[in-house]
Amino acid sequence: MRDDFLNIRHIEPDDCNAIFEVPSDWWGSNYSSDMISKWYIHHFRDTCLLAEENGKMAGFLIGFLSQSEPNESYIRIVMVDPAIRGKGVGRALYEEFFKRVGMLGRSVVRCVTAPGKKDSIAFHTRMGFIIEPQEQEYEGVPVFINYDGRGGNRVLFKKVLQKMENH
Amino acid sequence: MRDDFLNIRHIEPDDCNAIFEVPSDWWGSNYSSDMISKWYIHHFRDTCLLAEENGKMAGFLIGFLSQSEPNESYIRIVMVDPAIRGKGVGRALYEEFFKRVGMLGRSVVRCVTAPGKKDSIAFHTRMGFIIEPQEQEYEGVPVFINYDGRGGNRVLFKKVLQKMENH
Repeated sequence: MRDDFLNIRHIEPDDCNAIFEVPSDWWGSNYSSDMISKWYIHHFRDTCLLAEENGKMAGFLIGFLSQSEPNESYIRIVMVDPAIRGKGVGRALYEEFFKRVGMLGRSVVRCVTAPGKKDSIAFHTRMGFIIEPQEQEYEGVPVFINYDGRGGNRVLFKKVLQKMENH
Repeated sequence: MRDDFLNIRHIEPDDCNAIFEVPSDWWGSNYSSDMISKWYIHHFRDTCLLAEENGKMAGFLIGFLSQSEPNESYIRIVMVDPAIRGKGVGRALYEEFFKRVGMLGRSVVRCVTAPGKKDSIAFHTRMGFIIEPQEQEYEGVPVFINYDGRGGNRVLFKKVLQKMENH
């Protein structure tokens, strides 16, 4: 894939139909989140991004600027068309997110993954995230127990953005 | 209920277990939202409130400050113990929310309800919300079609907060 065929832009309300149709295919199972909704992408427009390859949706990213932590931003959901994985769509979405939240004054990006998702852990490490140390480990990976409060355990990633003047 | 027995405070991570145990009872059916989670209340602490009556959870409210609309705030989830409905817990949660988001510079509060929920429509009207006009109506109430993008229709409420100097 050449970069000039990949366009990253905000998710618009009209994109929602296309987004709702993909998750069971792209995610690998049914995925439910009230952040995948028209009202969410309206109120969090700056941090909801869509990647298009030749005009066709290739992936999307849904995140937010933390209200409580003024330096932090959070990537909540990322999905990429399984037919074109490994071609840089995820990287392009993350890099655009880093750029935009950096311009909005955020110096930290956080996200999480399930401890069994080795590909996701490798991807985030390549993208410059560090894994936050924890008391517990799962197969050698630090794991935060009961992350959501409902018993789910997660690997916690943190990336400190380089200041623009260092580029 | 006397006001001095009702305490409104932020939701803390330790409250999550109590919150997870109630929804099927309080909401009337199983309710799922990823905003009812430890990570959400951490990042949106200012707009997540809990009401306690004599130290026991009586209700809670989960909202956010709009990222995209700098004057707006949004109440997403409100639940009150069905055993003490009609005693002002919902009103107290909303009024505390109005006060806090007003102090954070927001002049508009938005929320929605299902068109069939007559009690909820009456409550929001008493709380000073107006119903946003729509082309469609349901039993005489203006209804926004496909609000979430998945086909759900909603009554859209809007309240403009009075400026502090007018009190």
